[in-house]
Amino acid sequence: MVVSREKKAPHQVVIVGGGFGGLYAAKALANANVDVTLIDKRNFHLFQPLLYQVATGTLSPADISAPLRSVFSKSKNTKVLLGEVNVIDPKTQQVILGDEIIPYDTLVIATGANHSYFGKDNWKEFAPGLKTVEDAIEMRRRIFSAFEAAEKETDPEKRRAFLTFVIVGGGPTGVELAGAIAELAYQTLKEDFRNIDTSEARILLLQGGDRILPHIAPVLSKAAAESLAKLGVVIHTQTRVTNIENEIVTFKQGDELTSIASKTILWAAGVQGSALGKVLAERTDVECDFSGRVIVEPDLTIKGYKNIFVIGDLANFSHQNGKPLPGVAPVAKQQGEYVGKLIQLRLQRHTLPEFHYTDVGSLAMIGQNLAVVDLGFIKLTGFLAWVFWLVIHIYFLIEFDTKLVVVIQWAWNYITRNRRSRLITGKEAFLEPQTVNNSNNSQIPEKKQPVKL
Amino acid sequence: MVVSREKKAPHQVVIVGGGFGGLYAAKALANANVDVTLIDKRNFHLFQPLLYQVATGTLSPADISAPLRSVFSKSKNTKVLLGEVNVIDPKTQQVILGDEIIPYDTLVIATGANHSYFGKDNWKEFAPGLKTVEDAIEMRRRIFSAFEAAEKETDPEKRRAFLTFVIVGGGPTGVELAGAIAELAYQTLKEDFRNIDTSEARILLLQGGDRILPHIAPVLSKAAAESLAKLGVVIHTQTRVTNIENEIVTFKQGDELTSIASKTILWAAGVQGSALGKVLAERTDVECDFSGRVIVEPDLTIKGYKNIFVIGDLANFSHQNGKPLPGVAPVAKQQGEYVGKLIQLRLQRHTLPEFHYTDVGSLAMIGQNLAVVDLGFIKLTGFLAWVFWLVIHIYFLIEFDTKLVVVIQWAWNYITRNRRSRLITGKEAFLEPQTVNNSNNSQIPEKKQPVKL
Repeated sequence: MVVSREKKAPHQVVIVGGGFGGLYAAKALANANVDVTLIDKRNFHLFQPLLYQVATGTLSPADISAPLRSVFSKSKNTKVLLGEVNVIDPKTQQVILGDEIIPYDTLVIATGANHSYFGKDNWKEFAPGLKTVEDAIEMRRRIFSAFEAAEKETDPEKRRAFLTFVIVGGGPTGVELAGAIAELAYQTLKEDFRNIDTSEARILLLQGGDRILPHIAPVLSKAAAESLAKLGVVIHTQTRVTNIENEIVTFKQGDELTSIASKTILWAAGVQGSALGKVLAERTDVECDFSGRVIVEPDLTIKGYKNIFVIGDLANFSHQNGKPLPGVAPVAKQQGEYVGKLIQLRLQRHTLPEFHYTDVGSLAMIGQNLAVVDLGFIKLTGFLAWVFWLVIHIYFLIEFDTKLVVVIQWAWNYITRNRRSRLITGKEAFLEPQTVNNSNNSQIPEKKQPVKL
Repeated sequence: MVVSREKKAPHQVVIVGGGFGGLYAAKALANANVDVTLIDKRNFHLFQPLLYQVATGTLSPADISAPLRSVFSKSKNTKVLLGEVNVIDPKTQQVILGDEIIPYDTLVIATGANHSYFGKDNWKEFAPGLKTVEDAIEMRRRIFSAFEAAEKETDPEKRRAFLTFVIVGGGPTGVELAGAIAELAYQTLKEDFRNIDTSEARILLLQGGDRILPHIAPVLSKAAAESLAKLGVVIHTQTRVTNIENEIVTFKQGDELTSIASKTILWAAGVQGSALGKVLAERTDVECDFSGRVIVEPDLTIKGYKNIFVIGDLANFSHQNGKPLPGVAPVAKQQGEYVGKLIQLRLQRHTLPEFHYTDVGSLAMIGQNLAVVDLGFIKLTGFLAWVFWLVIHIYFLIEFDTKLVVVIQWAWNYITRNRRSRLITGKEAFLEPQTVNNSNNSQIPEKKQPVKL
């Protein structure tokens, strides 16, 4: 028997991407009189703002993830599909998922952004970025392996390279990574090693512009920079990275060119819209901006297609104040909710005024008892900002999961500076390669030798 | 300046392996008047009895791990080294770690056991085992990917293979895996899919002997088998696996040969002593048993070497009741404590009577409200056993970590049947390969086609 889905529910909404945009769009449509198909490459939604805490050993990936199927377990009109959409055909109204063709009446594209190395893709290998759980695990592996390798290293110069951490990019992710690594080196790990003094670690934060956290008020940038400096982070502003090779980063500050040996170079600089933006641009008249984001209309649809929405980090929405809204979770979330609402209203022959982003403020964690919060009407720094950051994140995590115990654990870990999740897992490449000797022909020195220290 | 360690502390103890044996030996020596070097391949100790809960999505790896450095952070006589020991030279009293030579006065080998496929190493690829965090993540990926693939599959036969789970081995790990997967399929995931009914899943447990959990009393084996059957697990005893190929497992029960198509075959059968046992056997007069375990003396040393101890899963200690002690955590722990104590006493020219294992009983979790507990003098089944299991594990976890909140979360997750940690991460091989089309030359069908269901 061939089941025709069109007869069962009048309107097919296909949402590509289960990040904040896609998740909140689907939530807004849960149990509405439409069929929703939510497609994602992964089987979980990721609370990305806390991913840096996975990378620095405070949280486990599952602590900041929600399985998409369990989120929509009770929404019987919502179907979750796992896979990657590479092809969209706006003319025939369908997306292709592997060998499956999925027709839509309304399409919501929310596939977000990826790292951008500004054309220098060969830097990627030496300076990993932070977008996925795997990225975070890899970053964690590199950070903790660097301390381990330093503990073993006898050559002072090499040891220094192991204890040098360079973070490229002074946005929220770069600032939060730098702060967390500084806390690791100067506080958490201080007692744990016997040969090295972890407080000899150098943490460099390189920023292209003239201040870190350029999206918040200058007074808060300044406060953040001061807090980071107090933690021990060395900030270089107006600094452009000119080359990254294996273990060496070169940067230019004014006319001065500096090369630094570092085994742990982390990328928190550029992002670009995901590939589906370009696919869309090729098949419609829509345009992408220089970083691959799709220019959207005031109602978040694309030019010429009232039934295709692009939201979140992939969208360039410049109708509010002339410049694009930032690629942050609250924008994606509000856009998702807007689209979900608009789709339902349209089916009742109503509509909504154009999308308007309600700025909920910006905040960045720097370290224990240190954060900056910019709510526009109020600006906080230091301990008060830190408490505010904590409360806001607890609030969002509860909304996100409702598993209060997870939130308590998280807050507890955070407050007690627990770094329990500092497992070095996955490939072991970063540690000195161990020669696997066959025990029969291995060379054993005849005499007892002193331990190398 | 060359620092001679021998002058600082008279006695160098080198412990290889940070599992239960090595960890408790090092703990017993913490702050004693000896220098301790604890060597492990990983930077964390793993609470292996709960690893199956990582494999089935209840816990995160970090929940059951403790960073070795933080365990010994305060023990200034203890040095943690990361790396793999492949060479031991008992004559010159040194172990080789990469290019480093580490002399010892007393050596404790506690490197445990690995999977054994009884010589059929080609089965490994199709039937992964459960020893490491990576093993657990891989198992988790396979289990949850199987449900995802079944959801997509239209061919009923293939779908059936995706929904068939075969566990080889009816010891504690096999029983616990089978119970957890049954709960997943028949309870946790029931509402989460739209195309499949997860309760159609088949879970087979294959056991070579005539009963599951052969190490506990027959009456409890029977109770466990009944509980598993009630959960939906099909148990085949006196069944020998004769072949495992990609997605097909063949087994023999009496004269009957059966082949079953299954995409998820899990190995919980044989173990063998780690390679260091053989290294030792080649360099000393000590013997290994058929499964590679080192035959130890009544004081856990090896024949001819009073200063080399072998403990835990790698040791075959048969002096207590003629047969080797089982490879379980309590044995390793007690042996570690014994050795730590003995080393200190010897330095004071004292000694200890031979090692004696105090049996703390056996327990196995079958599922929610279902467990079996064998304390010798008392045998429990069902809900009471489950509560006992929970209390015992909470007790051990607290001892192990003292992070009460982690324990609460764990108990909470367990009691509420939370499967939050069901992330599919790592390589994506198991899911249907998605053809990555170049959007320019991809084929788009001209007409809207019905959705494949």
